Amino acid sequence: MDNNSAKVFKIGFLGMGTVAQGVWRHLQDNKDLMAKRFGAAYELAGVCVRDSSKKRGVCVPEDKITTDPMEIISDPSIDIVCELMGGIRQAREYTLAALKAGKVVVSANKALICNCGAEIFSAAKKYDGSYFFEASVAGGVPIIKVLREGLVANRFSLIYGILNGTCNYILTRMERENASYESILKDARRLGYVEADESLDVDGWDSAHKISILAYLAHGVWIKPENMLIQGIRDIRIEDLRWAKDFDRRVKLVASVRKNEHGAVFASVCPTLLPSTDVVANVNGVYNAVSMDGDIVGRTVHIGRGAGQDATASAVIADIGDAIKYLLGAPMQLSPVSDTLVNLAGLSDISACFYLRLEVKDEAGVLAMISAVLAGRNISIELLEQRKHENAGRAWLMLTTHITTEDAIKKACAELESLDEVYDSPFVMRIFDA
Amino acid sequence: MDNNSAKVFKIGFLGMGTVAQGVWRHLQDNKDLMAKRFGAAYELAGVCVRDSSKKRGVCVPEDKITTDPMEIISDPSIDIVCELMGGIRQAREYTLAALKAGKVVVSANKALICNCGAEIFSAAKKYDGSYFFEASVAGGVPIIKVLREGLVANRFSLIYGILNGTCNYILTRMERENASYESILKDARRLGYVEADESLDVDGWDSAHKISILAYLAHGVWIKPENMLIQGIRDIRIEDLRWAKDFDRRVKLVASVRKNEHGAVFASVCPTLLPSTDVVANVNGVYNAVSMDGDIVGRTVHIGRGAGQDATASAVIADIGDAIKYLLGAPMQLSPVSDTLVNLAGLSDISACFYLRLEVKDEAGVLAMISAVLAGRNISIELLEQRKHENAGRAWLMLTTHITTEDAIKKACAELESLDEVYDSPFVMRIFDA
Repeated sequence: MDNNSAKVFKIGFLGMGTVAQGVWRHLQDNKDLMAKRFGAAYELAGVCVRDSSKKRGVCVPEDKITTDPMEIISDPSIDIVCELMGGIRQAREYTLAALKAGKVVVSANKALICNCGAEIFSAAKKYDGSYFFEASVAGGVPIIKVLREGLVANRFSLIYGILNGTCNYILTRMERENASYESILKDARRLGYVEADESLDVDGWDSAHKISILAYLAHGVWIKPENMLIQGIRDIRIEDLRWAKDFDRRVKLVASVRKNEHGAVFASVCPTLLPSTDVVANVNGVYNAVSMDGDIVGRTVHIGRGAGQDATASAVIADIGDAIKYLLGAPMQLSPVSDTLVNLAGLSDISACFYLRLEVKDEAGVLAMISAVLAGRNISIELLEQRKHENAGRAWLMLTTHITTEDAIKKACAELESLDEVYDSPFVMRIFDA
Repeated sequence: MDNNSAKVFKIGFLGMGTVAQGVWRHLQDNKDLMAKRFGAAYELAGVCVRDSSKKRGVCVPEDKITTDPMEIISDPSIDIVCELMGGIRQAREYTLAALKAGKVVVSANKALICNCGAEIFSAAKKYDGSYFFEASVAGGVPIIKVLREGLVANRFSLIYGILNGTCNYILTRMERENASYESILKDARRLGYVEADESLDVDGWDSAHKISILAYLAHGVWIKPENMLIQGIRDIRIEDLRWAKDFDRRVKLVASVRKNEHGAVFASVCPTLLPSTDVVANVNGVYNAVSMDGDIVGRTVHIGRGAGQDATASAVIADIGDAIKYLLGAPMQLSPVSDTLVNLAGLSDISACFYLRLEVKDEAGVLAMISAVLAGRNISIELLEQRKHENAGRAWLMLTTHITTEDAIKKACAELESLDEVYDSPFVMRIFDA
């Protein structure tokens, strides 16, 4: 190690967007402190950008800038490559090339990992390299390190949390200001909180990518978004938040992965009613939270900023520290090891209690008809309340069910939607069961 | 690494109490899974106990039991020594001997680390060994790993939290059941939640040991309990909790370490009023919580069981995993590195707003007298309320102050106590300022 300590580790960047600029600036400004903490010196060696003439918030010497990624990837003096370019196709190509070239790769690219994680991890293994991705989930909260190392003793029956700060910001403001989804979304856009592809945030895809990564680490199986139940926040109305408040609950976009008693795992991202006493229910604004139930440790919850330049940079820098430790001789970050074979659960295996909101004709007999549909699926009603609708002749019907399956609810909703007395499709939320 | 992977790491135990039994059982029951996760096989090689005839909850083969600690420490085949015996004098002696003998030592002994950390860490360095102590703070929450590794990019201006589950349990039940300190303490004793030396818990010493460790990791300086402000929970009355509720606050025993703008650090353990919206304020029962303000990541909060056999075992096992990684070639866990010299702040450097509860004579002129004492110290009153006392002729006076110093409050309280109109010494709580 003494010989190695004298080595200066060279770090190259693919991409110089918001996060990369944060990483560059903090590593540049705190060089002595970080080198001491890492146990070795480093040099910010090069940056590949798409447009070298673009003005940036950090000062990168001109001779370190290139527009050719291979100049970074093929430079034998570079030890660590930070892939902070985003996107999937090119990021995949460069990541695989960098691993093949013997680099340690650090990434914050959740979409890439969710889509190509199996391929990337096996490349890392094949070329005896390593791939670090702490910043891909929950921003500054070192949740991957906590899961893999700090809680290494545990098996996880349930992991759930808030993994998208934008959705949480929108829901928090809707609730506080009694405002509609559309009006707050407009504001969030104006503040730059929403991704260019808005659907990634509000339709739950970003959360799905992240829970997929946690599911892999906990259970060793890649669950693709198409095998999850995914529902975004577009259809949440202020009436739902008011109902929740009256029943001492809060609405959050909850991403979760559960393993049931038969060893089947199931991941989902959906608006969910949490009891207002749940710690996660009280995490507001752009903050993320991850709650994990370990079989030995019990429940631990980890909260922090889920996005933003500095929070994400903090996680990337932690990975660079671990990458240096790896290069100094630490064993490879192990792949997840599950001691049981897991399979994916189907919709009829997944039980929950549900909240339904229906927009109905305000006339006699409607209630009986709806009850009959639910009874036909063996779904029994727990609470039922009719609330005023802004249009005369219509009413909101809020109801909660006793425990039933995703499959039964799905079929019942399709049937309800087909009734003349029901406008639009029913809005569904899961009631959280810890 | 391939050669090393074939090695079976031998683990010896000093002490076989509650936590050690948990560690032994989980490592025994999950041998294959843990070996895969650690990247190497292990053997539970030996146990030193005080009384070998004592019945224990786990089955340790007789030939692995000794009453002579040197049989573990001097056994050249043993790689990792788990010091789980508690206490200070002997634990210190055996720890130093084990480090000298080239062992990696794992410990959950917060009192030992707080008292002898400097000596132990320098011995670990001298003998090129390593010392792991995740379980010493916040039980199952891997807060030391989060602080040192996951948030390595950050400097910490404020760390605060609930570090003693027993006190939090007592306060939570007092609040929920509107019950007195004494009645709940009795129950906690009966349930085995209170240490044999009760003062460790309820007078704040245990929290002080733990915040001392976090302060060292964040700032590189050992703050001994005698240099902290320490106040336990004995004098908290149900009246204080009621007042707090009426003002939308909650009372927690908060341990904290702050660094002020002049680079001075200050650690304290005191009953504190937190706004009821603070995440930490909503952590109840035996749970612990640690909130850390990093200059880059912002605030992160970590919550979990702070004590108990399994939660603590989970942290010890994580350390054993890291110990094996260290033996496989990972660089030594670095000592904390602070980039600035820190000094300890004095009482006149520490500002806060305060809550005072005074037991006073219920007669004219008392209020004027008290106001005069506070005014004489330049302490200005924010809220003041007189509440009914159970004894006729007396009253409770609750007041909060605007910002002032610890020094001013201390002197004012001494003066108030000397008044004939004031019974007993004033009860003081800090109002949390994040």
